[in-house]
Amino acid sequence: MDARVSRLQPLDFAAWMAAHLQAVEAALSQWVPAQAPAGLGDAMRYAVLDGGKRLRPLLVLAACESIQGEGAGVGSEAALRAGNEAALRASNDAALRAACSVELIHAYSLVHDDMPCMDNDILRRGKPTVHVKFGQAQALLAGDALQALAFELLTPVDGSVSAAVQARLCALLARAAGEAGMAGGQAIDLASVGVKLNEDQLRQMHRLKTGALLQASVAMGAACAAASAAQSQALADYGAAIGLAFQVVDDILDVVADSATLGKTAGKDADHDKPTYVSLMGLQSARAYAQTLYTQALDALERSGLADTRALQALADMVVKRSS
Amino acid sequence: MDARVSRLQPLDFAAWMAAHLQAVEAALSQWVPAQAPAGLGDAMRYAVLDGGKRLRPLLVLAACESIQGEGAGVGSEAALRAGNEAALRASNDAALRAACSVELIHAYSLVHDDMPCMDNDILRRGKPTVHVKFGQAQALLAGDALQALAFELLTPVDGSVSAAVQARLCALLARAAGEAGMAGGQAIDLASVGVKLNEDQLRQMHRLKTGALLQASVAMGAACAAASAAQSQALADYGAAIGLAFQVVDDILDVVADSATLGKTAGKDADHDKPTYVSLMGLQSARAYAQTLYTQALDALERSGLADTRALQALADMVVKRSS
Repeated sequence: MDARVSRLQPLDFAAWMAAHLQAVEAALSQWVPAQAPAGLGDAMRYAVLDGGKRLRPLLVLAACESIQGEGAGVGSEAALRAGNEAALRASNDAALRAACSVELIHAYSLVHDDMPCMDNDILRRGKPTVHVKFGQAQALLAGDALQALAFELLTPVDGSVSAAVQARLCALLARAAGEAGMAGGQAIDLASVGVKLNEDQLRQMHRLKTGALLQASVAMGAACAAASAAQSQALADYGAAIGLAFQVVDDILDVVADSATLGKTAGKDADHDKPTYVSLMGLQSARAYAQTLYTQALDALERSGLADTRALQALADMVVKRSS
Repeated sequence: MDARVSRLQPLDFAAWMAAHLQAVEAALSQWVPAQAPAGLGDAMRYAVLDGGKRLRPLLVLAACESIQGEGAGVGSEAALRAGNEAALRASNDAALRAACSVELIHAYSLVHDDMPCMDNDILRRGKPTVHVKFGQAQALLAGDALQALAFELLTPVDGSVSAAVQARLCALLARAAGEAGMAGGQAIDLASVGVKLNEDQLRQMHRLKTGALLQASVAMGAACAAASAAQSQALADYGAAIGLAFQVVDDILDVVADSATLGKTAGKDADHDKPTYVSLMGLQSARAYAQTLYTQALDALERSGLADTRALQALADMVVKRSS
């Protein structure tokens, strides 16, 4: 990891991640309802509580904490000392809700994306996909219900999150999920099978399909902590860079990794004749491009003027250097 | 129509409805984006701008106006004089947004419900269903994008709707759409094919599947106009009664009407061996039950103490006496 912030001790990122993942998993398990009718809850929980990387929730929490400063976060020493339950009750309840809401949107998109009429994938994170396990109709409904649940999480009626923050979070999430974001990107993806895209078109597709929600994760974290305009802009630049880097690395992994490592079917982009960064620019150039985007992300953090961006740096690192 | 409110002139409901429908259609046409990528916008607009009855939007607007009092509404004389564009800019911008948002949720649910893995219906409002016209993948995405767009509409970033109202509307809509509402009801529906439900179970299914969104429409209209607790409760009772009446009448029409009148496939409940009010209680009792619910709805309006509930009365009338 790039150690640009010399004033601070190196972050024990493994500990940070473990604490934050624990908080996210506990919150998701609490908030995705087992009691939803007629097996719907089972399908929803199967889709969500399956050991994903939780990159988006971690981005929300890291962005929020980068503005709040040290010691305020879910994974801060104080929170760790008080244990996970206390962390859940902590002042950044809004950030934890936002973290889970982006993961629900991500999870629903995977459920629908895996269906026979879309990518027709039977394996996801090493397990049968939701429609294989529960049937297509239940998978469709579970995806729909997960999207609604994301907005339920953002609008608690207990007064724990201010109306202004609720409204801002819903605005960011809806736009990232909808036609000008993820769903729009998937429509381009759908239309691009067997079509020759140039690099600009490919970038536009991924900005929407994957980038919008990753970028929204960072923006939602910032919205929970009253970021300044300059901080928000720098974090948006960071989010855009790692959003794109994520997809470039995804394309690289689809070529170089095997299905067992990925937990999903490898090589399917080439099989489906989908344009990718690798097919467009070649493997070596794609790798160099991922590195460039990584540097852009770190530059944006440096520009932000935020005192502690160590977790965001480490997450950028994780995005680019992951093997699955 | 029951003319209980003797202090007021009878409402010219045809004029009221025409004005309000015009405002809703114009707003939907403006807000459902034609420019969404790769044909997604076309599928979204096809799903929404197709001459539905717009019962839910009308309920939102009527509920809001019943609290605001005469002359404040989209279809008020002042608004009518100023023309439709001015009405769109009027102070009840929140109600118009809420009206469109419930219609988007309704429209997306029809798109997904019609898909082969669900009801496999090829005809909707006299036209080919979305997946028949655009393919299953695009239909799936269009439904997903419409759900997100509903929450976009509720969270304008131009300051036209207060954060408190935005948050309240998102909270109501998300809960009505999700696992404890519409999606949950559809899961019960899915699980109930060929299963014998008793009347309580059937009512519970419909309370979620259809009732939740109809009831939310009324509640969202009330939320746009700062209703008192007593007014909200009375309107909630009204919404619950007409929500259930709507489904009872739907079941009756599925038996007595033909496909041409319905604009969708008639007799499909019996074909699919689905439990209905008619199959459970017989046609005559189902008709009597619809009448009872209608009376309950009007009683709730009388109890509300609201000065002018004529449009809400007329909408209850429309729900029970419709022929399609």
